[in-house]
Amino acid sequence: MTEERWQRLTYWPLVVASLAFIVAYSWQVIANLQGPEYAGMRTVMAATWVVFAIDYLVRLGLAPKKGPWFRGHLFDLAVVVLPVLKPLRLVRAITEIQKMSKGDQLRTQAAILAGGTVAILIWICSLAVLDVERPAPGANILNFGDAIWWAFVTVTTVGYGDLYPITAWGRIVAVVLMSVGIGVVGVVTATTASWFVERAATLAGNDDQEAATRGQVRSLARQLETVAKALPKDAEKVLPRHKEAEPPHPSA
Amino acid sequence: MTEERWQRLTYWPLVVASLAFIVAYSWQVIANLQGPEYAGMRTVMAATWVVFAIDYLVRLGLAPKKGPWFRGHLFDLAVVVLPVLKPLRLVRAITEIQKMSKGDQLRTQAAILAGGTVAILIWICSLAVLDVERPAPGANILNFGDAIWWAFVTVTTVGYGDLYPITAWGRIVAVVLMSVGIGVVGVVTATTASWFVERAATLAGNDDQEAATRGQVRSLARQLETVAKALPKDAEKVLPRHKEAEPPHPSA
Amino acid sequence: MTEERWQRLTYWPLVVASLAFIVAYSWQVIANLQGPEYAGMRTVMAATWVVFAIDYLVRLGLAPKKGPWFRGHLFDLAVVVLPVLKPLRLVRAITEIQKMSKGDQLRTQAAILAGGTVAILIWICSLAVLDVERPAPGANILNFGDAIWWAFVTVTTVGYGDLYPITAWGRIVAVVLMSVGIGVVGVVTATTASWFVERAATLAGNDDQEAATRGQVRSLARQLETVAKALPKDAEKVLPRHKEAEPPHPSA
Amino acid sequence: MTEERWQRLTYWPLVVASLAFIVAYSWQVIANLQGPEYAGMRTVMAATWVVFAIDYLVRLGLAPKKGPWFRGHLFDLAVVVLPVLKPLRLVRAITEIQKMSKGDQLRTQAAILAGGTVAILIWICSLAVLDVERPAPGANILNFGDAIWWAFVTVTTVGYGDLYPITAWGRIVAVVLMSVGIGVVGVVTATTASWFVERAATLAGNDDQEAATRGQVRSLARQLETVAKALPKDAEKVLPRHKEAEPPHPSA
Repeated sequence: MTEERWQRLTYWPLVVASLAFIVAYSWQVIANLQGPEYAGMRTVMAATWVVFAIDYLVRLGLAPKKGPWFRGHLFDLAVVVLPVLKPLRLVRAITEIQKMSKGDQLRTQAAILAGGTVAILIWICSLAVLDVERPAPGANILNFGDAIWWAFVTVTTVGYGDLYPITAWGRIVAVVLMSVGIGVVGVVTATTASWFVERAATLAGNDDQEAATRGQVRSLARQLETVAKALPKDAEKVLPRHKEAEPPHPSA
Repeated sequence: MTEERWQRLTYWPLVVASLAFIVAYSWQVIANLQGPEYAGMRTVMAATWVVFAIDYLVRLGLAPKKGPWFRGHLFDLAVVVLPVLKPLRLVRAITEIQKMSKGDQLRTQAAILAGGTVAILIWICSLAVLDVERPAPGANILNFGDAIWWAFVTVTTVGYGDLYPITAWGRIVAVVLMSVGIGVVGVVTATTASWFVERAATLAGNDDQEAATRGQVRSLARQLETVAKALPKDAEKVLPRHKEAEPPHPSA
Repeated sequence: MTEERWQRLTYWPLVVASLAFIVAYSWQVIANLQGPEYAGMRTVMAATWVVFAIDYLVRLGLAPKKGPWFRGHLFDLAVVVLPVLKPLRLVRAITEIQKMSKGDQLRTQAAILAGGTVAILIWICSLAVLDVERPAPGANILNFGDAIWWAFVTVTTVGYGDLYPITAWGRIVAVVLMSVGIGVVGVVTATTASWFVERAATLAGNDDQEAATRGQVRSLARQLETVAKALPKDAEKVLPRHKEAEPPHPSA
Repeated sequence: MTEERWQRLTYWPLVVASLAFIVAYSWQVIANLQGPEYAGMRTVMAATWVVFAIDYLVRLGLAPKKGPWFRGHLFDLAVVVLPVLKPLRLVRAITEIQKMSKGDQLRTQAAILAGGTVAILIWICSLAVLDVERPAPGANILNFGDAIWWAFVTVTTVGYGDLYPITAWGRIVAVVLMSVGIGVVGVVTATTASWFVERAATLAGNDDQEAATRGQVRSLARQLETVAKALPKDAEKVLPRHKEAEPPHPSA
């Protein structure tokens, strides 16, 4: 069996495991479960942990070269070790859904992708912060509403300071939220800004001062190719097909 | 009657309704009206609500295909349901006024459009936050001056934390202000920054290191077209008019 | 006498008046002058006010068309009305000094221009905030060190909230500092970021993925012009000199 | 002996001195050393100071023209005067390591370079702030965990305000961290954002609306060169090799 076939087979089970993890973790933290209920939710989470660990080991086993595969899948290892990252798997599902609407505008795609990621990130980080802060003496993030509010205030870098983590783990969650989230929020911000600039360009009657796009340069290259075709026949022999220094598209 | 004709007919009535809403809401909140005066203002606001609801239903009725129209006008539905969004209608009036000065510089247009939107947004969000926070025990946003100051501090992401919402509704208003406002403020920031870079380019004697503009690439395409015309006659036959991969301009 | 000649004649007197204003205001606020010394400094400031007012009126008188001149010099009117803006005149002096080093790199120019403006802005706003906040009961910005620290924390949007204005005038100064300063700080930030990306491009061995520059497109246009010259003679007749859709360079 | 040869000889000794400085300073501050241990660490730091001072003087002596060398190496002078800047020398080592992986993607390079710099900067500034704040009465940054947390909150401009420097030196360190760090964090943010936009472009099926790259324009220039070669022979004589208005690559 190839790794690709394995990934196709395990795609939906892993999405379900991610969802199960997020539901169980949300329930446990928000309802502040104790005793047998707490144990039950923890069992569900442990089960998803086993599913992800098996998936990781099987794929490592299927890989022809273990070394390069290991170095290229450090994020997958992090997902296995840190259970809290599991729901980020759902971002892959978002991109899967988006593939169906192929051809949409770049800006819409970027906004949906960034919006989805930031929503999952805010949800997970809120749960994690509440989970580690609530039992700490002197903590000020004590219910889920506060935790969500804190996550929004942090990820937009507003940072009022009415609420903030005081435990080491809470601060580590905050640093993750700042490091990743600010970049993703940047996409949403840039999308809004770009919409405004475009709207203003429509009003001004031209967009000559906006940054040149890749599409424009490609159209120019096609125009040049047509000119070349119109040249005396011996010209065409030496004229190569236009090959562009394309930025590499990651497929992962 | 077509939807277009209806929109032309209702353009000014809806602008007036938006202004009536914002004046009534401002008066009620800032003066902290009670008793019959409060009821009076609420009546004005209810009337504007009816006007917007009728407009929405008539346009839905006029649309040839209800489904696509409904999906394409979710923002209009939000304006009907959430009265507080009504004054955003005035942004359309700003763009209307701008159309008269067609041909102005893109940067000026973007600055006016973004500045107008952010001013309306700050005003509405200040009213809404004050409205929901004032009655809450332990709240710290207690007069309109404070509310405006809080909105500025939030939208620029400074976030001192001297003032912040504590109720669920106040926090939702804050999240809207952060999400939309930061992007719009980004346009103002970028405009200021671009003015400085351009000024520096003038001083440096050249702007060779600034990002290429669409206007530049278009000028290059025109130059290439002229070269093509100078080629032997059979060249012109195969040379298509330059068609650019234009970014789509939204008309909504 | 033309307006241009007047401006050449008054250039240095106005720079001196700006410097006199900033020295007098700094002395008065930092040393918290009282009695006759306070009156003395206020007299110096009033004198610079008269100088700026006369300059404004003479230029208005010299202008052939009063209406357009008035609309095009609203900033100059603001400088006359709000004395605190006078030192911004010194930014013009910075650009004057920069002209001597014509040919420098765009990035260096932008950094010096933005750095100079932000330094003057921080200095003025610190003075203004301290001036209005110190007498207010319950204020927390009470000495010049605190005021400078507050201005840095505000302009970078960090906004700890250890210090913040509480008076209406102090908050207006803060909004000016946020609105203008954040954009200018954006230039410094972007310059730092661009230095890093360029350094990384040197390490990576190529900068193919950086944004295309205006210089590149111009070089391409020159190349195309050379090709056109090599065409049969009748080609040159129809080939216009390359005229670029240049972004307008402001001279003010 | 030339300066270049001297730099090759002293490369590793200076890296070791930087590391020795950072280890000694970290130990002294984090363990809050007193008495003989404090003196020991201080001796190590003084030794590295001597090493850097000798290096500076020798290079100044080797320079053919002292004046230009002095003006061009102000940062080196700052490193000698302010011991706390010494570890920034290690950034040079990071770039050295990166050179080995020449050909990597620009984005990865920029992220590693910026990430390394920001990590060193956060570490140094945390030590420096803790060193000057701990003895001050009323200070709130009292242990290394707090100092690191404060540095992260500052450099991302979140600025909760739970912790902030109160001494003049602590505030100067904070201003350095804000001024330099925010730009470098900007690179990390932009890298994250660009990854998202690229991912969205893959999903949308095209990246026509992304900004044009230098690689694209270069590819166009090569295409044009090929067309020129296909022209009648006398054309080639007047066609110069394509020389691009290249942004200067700093080698320092």
